[in-house]
Amino acid sequence: MATLHELKEYVREIGELYSAVALCAWDQRTHMPEKGAEARAKVLGRLERMAFERVVSDRIGELIAAAEREGARSEVDQALIRVWKRDHMRHRAIPPALYQKFVETTSRAETVWEKAKAASDFALFRPHLAEVVDLIREMAKLIGYTESPYDALVDEYEPGMTVSSLRPLLASLRKELVAFLKELSRGTPPQTLSAGTYPLDPQRQFCREALGWIGYDFGAGRLDDSVHPFTIGIGVGDVRVTNRYQEDEPFSGLFGALHEGGHALYGQGNDPALAWTGLSGGASFGIHESQSRFWENQIGRSLAFWTYAHPHLIRHFPGLAQTKPEDVWRHVNHAQPSLIRVEADEVTYNLHICLRFELEVELIEGRISVDQLPERWNQATADYLGVTPPDDRSGVLQDVHWSGGMFGYFASYTLGNLYGAQIAETAEREIPGFWDKVQTGQLAPIREWLRENVHRHGRVYLPEELVKRVTGSGLSAEPFLRYVRAKYGEVYGL
Amino acid sequence: MATLHELKEYVREIGELYSAVALCAWDQRTHMPEKGAEARAKVLGRLERMAFERVVSDRIGELIAAAEREGARSEVDQALIRVWKRDHMRHRAIPPALYQKFVETTSRAETVWEKAKAASDFALFRPHLAEVVDLIREMAKLIGYTESPYDALVDEYEPGMTVSSLRPLLASLRKELVAFLKELSRGTPPQTLSAGTYPLDPQRQFCREALGWIGYDFGAGRLDDSVHPFTIGIGVGDVRVTNRYQEDEPFSGLFGALHEGGHALYGQGNDPALAWTGLSGGASFGIHESQSRFWENQIGRSLAFWTYAHPHLIRHFPGLAQTKPEDVWRHVNHAQPSLIRVEADEVTYNLHICLRFELEVELIEGRISVDQLPERWNQATADYLGVTPPDDRSGVLQDVHWSGGMFGYFASYTLGNLYGAQIAETAEREIPGFWDKVQTGQLAPIREWLRENVHRHGRVYLPEELVKRVTGSGLSAEPFLRYVRAKYGEVYGL
Repeated sequence: MATLHELKEYVREIGELYSAVALCAWDQRTHMPEKGAEARAKVLGRLERMAFERVVSDRIGELIAAAEREGARSEVDQALIRVWKRDHMRHRAIPPALYQKFVETTSRAETVWEKAKAASDFALFRPHLAEVVDLIREMAKLIGYTESPYDALVDEYEPGMTVSSLRPLLASLRKELVAFLKELSRGTPPQTLSAGTYPLDPQRQFCREALGWIGYDFGAGRLDDSVHPFTIGIGVGDVRVTNRYQEDEPFSGLFGALHEGGHALYGQGNDPALAWTGLSGGASFGIHESQSRFWENQIGRSLAFWTYAHPHLIRHFPGLAQTKPEDVWRHVNHAQPSLIRVEADEVTYNLHICLRFELEVELIEGRISVDQLPERWNQATADYLGVTPPDDRSGVLQDVHWSGGMFGYFASYTLGNLYGAQIAETAEREIPGFWDKVQTGQLAPIREWLRENVHRHGRVYLPEELVKRVTGSGLSAEPFLRYVRAKYGEVYGL
Repeated sequence: MATLHELKEYVREIGELYSAVALCAWDQRTHMPEKGAEARAKVLGRLERMAFERVVSDRIGELIAAAEREGARSEVDQALIRVWKRDHMRHRAIPPALYQKFVETTSRAETVWEKAKAASDFALFRPHLAEVVDLIREMAKLIGYTESPYDALVDEYEPGMTVSSLRPLLASLRKELVAFLKELSRGTPPQTLSAGTYPLDPQRQFCREALGWIGYDFGAGRLDDSVHPFTIGIGVGDVRVTNRYQEDEPFSGLFGALHEGGHALYGQGNDPALAWTGLSGGASFGIHESQSRFWENQIGRSLAFWTYAHPHLIRHFPGLAQTKPEDVWRHVNHAQPSLIRVEADEVTYNLHICLRFELEVELIEGRISVDQLPERWNQATADYLGVTPPDDRSGVLQDVHWSGGMFGYFASYTLGNLYGAQIAETAEREIPGFWDKVQTGQLAPIREWLRENVHRHGRVYLPEELVKRVTGSGLSAEPFLRYVRAKYGEVYGL
C-alpha cells in the first residue's frame, strides 16, 4: 500500500504537468497572439519533456513493479498500474534518438504534405512518407507484437485491439455498407434546404444553448472558436470545447458543437476520484468517439431531436421559418458517395475508414510499398464508393494523419460509430420513453445514464470490457447497421 | 564561457516554467471556469515549486559561483549573474519550513483581513497581522541587511534602494505636497462632468483603440476583462493586459487601459535577446510603474491628449457631444484629499504612500507595535490630507498588501510617479515637438524613444543606473513636483 501511495504521488506530478500542457495547447489554438507562437512551442516542448522523463524514468518502473508485486486490491488501483505500465513500456521501448528522429521526420513530412496536397503532387510527398513508414515499422518492432506489427500501433489508440479482431469486423461492415448504398440509390434522395446566410453570433448562441440541452456544464468548461473544433480536458472541473462555423449553413456548426459536447460530457462525467491518477479521460479513442457520435448522430440527426430543436432553430434563424422539423431532419440525413472523408455522411463515412485501415495494415506489414498507395487508394474508392478521385489531393493526400505518423488511428473513428450505436440501442432499451424524452428536450436522464455507465469510469476498464458491461455484448457492427438501415431507409423511402 | 552557457541553459528551464505559471495565472483570472479552480491551484503550486527548487538548488549556486570566478564579459552577462545570484541568495536564505509557515500565515491573514475590512474590525485582524510582521522581521534578518531590516524587504521590489535613501526623499516630497494642497484649496476646483450611462462594449472598443494609439501590439498581446486590471508577460511576443470598466463613467476604464498598456509596452519592448535569461521584464517595480504612470497621467491626463482623443470619445459616447476637450481635461484632473489610496488623484496619491512607508519602517524596525497602527494611521491621514477616517475600513484596513506580507512594496508606487515625471521631462526635451505629436495622436515616436531608452534593457541595469542613463541624473522628486504644480496650478487657476 505504501508503494501504491508513492506511485500515486509520482503520477500526480505527471498529471499536473499534463494539465499545464493542455492549457498551453488550448490557449495556443484559441487565444494566443500570433507572435507568441515561438515561445509557446518552447514551453510546450519543455513541459512535455519533463512529463516524458517521468513516464520513462527508472523510478516509476520500480514503483510499478513493486506495486504489482504487492498486488493491488481495488479495480481502480489495478487499472492505475495497468495504464502506467503500458505507457512506461511503450515509451521506454523507443530510444530517445529514434524518437527525436521521428519528431523531426514527421514535422518535416507534415510541412511537405501541406505543399504536396495543395499541388496535388504525391511524388513530392512520397519519399517523406516512406521515411515515416520505415520509422513507424521500426518503432512497432521495438514496442513488440505477437501477430502483426500493426497491432503494436493500433494498441496505442485502442488498447487490446488487433488486426485479427478488426479485419473481419471491418470487412463485413464494408460489404454490408456497399450493398446498402446500392439499395439507397434506388430510393428517393431527400430534398435539401437551399443555401442562405447565417450570421455567426446567432450560430454561437444556438450552439451554446444546444450544449446546455445535452447537459454540458459551463461552470466546468467553455466554448470558444478555433480553426479545427476540439475538446480538451485541462483538469477536474475544466473540460473545454471549441467550434467553428460556416456562414452559408447553420448545421455544421451545430453538429460540431454536439460532437465536441459529447466528448466533453465524457470528461466532465469522470469520477473526480480519478483525478491525477492517469485514469481520467476515456477507455480508448474509439469509446471517446462513441460519445461524440452518440450526441452528434444518434441524437442530433434524429427526427425527435429536431421536433424539439426546430422552434429554437427558427428563433435564431427566422429565414428558416417556412421549414418543418421533418425538412431539417431530411436535410441532415442525406447520403451521397463522395471523395472526402471529413465531409462524408453516416452511411459512407465508414467506407472511407475501411479503405484506410486496409491500406495501412498492408503498408505496415510490408505487403505493399508507399509507391503503390495512390493507385490502390483510387481503386478502393471506386470499388467501395463508386466514385474515382480526379487527383491525389482528393485521394491519397487528403488526410494529415500519415504525415504525422498516426498509423493505427483511423479505425477509432469507425469503432466510435459502432460503439455509439451499440450504446444507443442499450440506452433506448433501458431508459423509459427514450425518444419521448428526446422529443421534449429532456436529455438530462440520457446524459445521466451515460455518466453512470460510461463516463464516470474513465480509463478504468479496457474498451472491450466496458462495452460488455454497458451493452451486455462485445463489439459488433450489427446495431450500427440496424440504425443506418432504419433511418436512411425511411429518409429514402425504401 | 562554458559555465555561463550552462547557467543560461539552466535558467532557461526556470523561465519556461514561469511562462507556464504566467499562463495558468492569466487564465485563472480571465477565462477559467469556476469549477476548475481547485485543480488549477494544484497545478500552479506544482509548477511554482518546480521553479523554486531550481532557483534554490545547489547546482545553480555552483554555476553562479563558477561564472563569477570566470568573470563575465558583457553587461548583459554580468546582469544575468547579478539577478540570479540575488534571487538564489534571497530565496535560499529562507528555510523551507519558515517559508511554508509564511505562506500559510499570510493565506489565513488575507482571509481574515477580508472579513475584518468588511466589519471594519481591526481587533479581528490584529493578531494575524502581528504574526505576519513577526515572520517578515525574521525573514528580513535571514536575508540580511546593513542598516535597517526594512532594507532587506524593499530590495525585493527596488534593488539597491534603502531606508536611508528613501526616507529623506519621501519626507521632503510629503512636505511639498502638503503645502501645495493648501495652495490648491485657495484655487477654483474644476467643474466635473455629470454622471451618465456608458455601455461596456463601446468602452472596450475605445480602450482597444487607445491601446493602438500608444503602440500596444495586439499581434503580441490581448485585452481581456478581469476583476482587477493587470498586465502579464507570458513569453516573448505575448504580453497581455486586462481591464475593468465602470458603467457610470468611461474614464476609469480608459485610464486603466493606458496604465496597463504602459506596463505592457515595457514587456513588448524588451530586447528579444533577453528572453529566458531572467532579464526580461523591468528594472524594478518602481521603474515598471513609471511606464504605466507615464501613459496614464503624463500623456493620458494632458490637454494635448484630449485634444486628439476627444472626437474619438464622442464617437463612442455621443452623449458627451456637448463637451469640449478642455472640459474632459479638467474633469480628469480634479484633486481632492480623500481617504482611499486607490481612488486618489495625482496630488494626494503620494501622501497615502508616504504615510504607509513611514508606518512600515517603524513597524519593521520594531519602533511601534501593530496595536498602535490604527491611531497612527488616522493621525497621519489628518496631518497630511486634512481628513480623518471615520472607521478602520477606510483607514488602516483598506489595503490588502500587509495581510499578504508585502512590506516594502508601497514605495514603488511613488517611485513610479517620480521616475515617470523624470522620464517625461527628458522625453519632452529630447523628442522634437513632443506635445504637438501628442495633440495629433502621433505617439509612435514617444513609444520608440521609451523602447530605446528604457524598455529594451529589461532588468539589465539597476533602477538607479537606468534612470541616470535615461535622464542624466539620479532619482529626484523635483520633476514630479514641477509637473503637478504646473498642471494643477493651471486647472485650479492659481
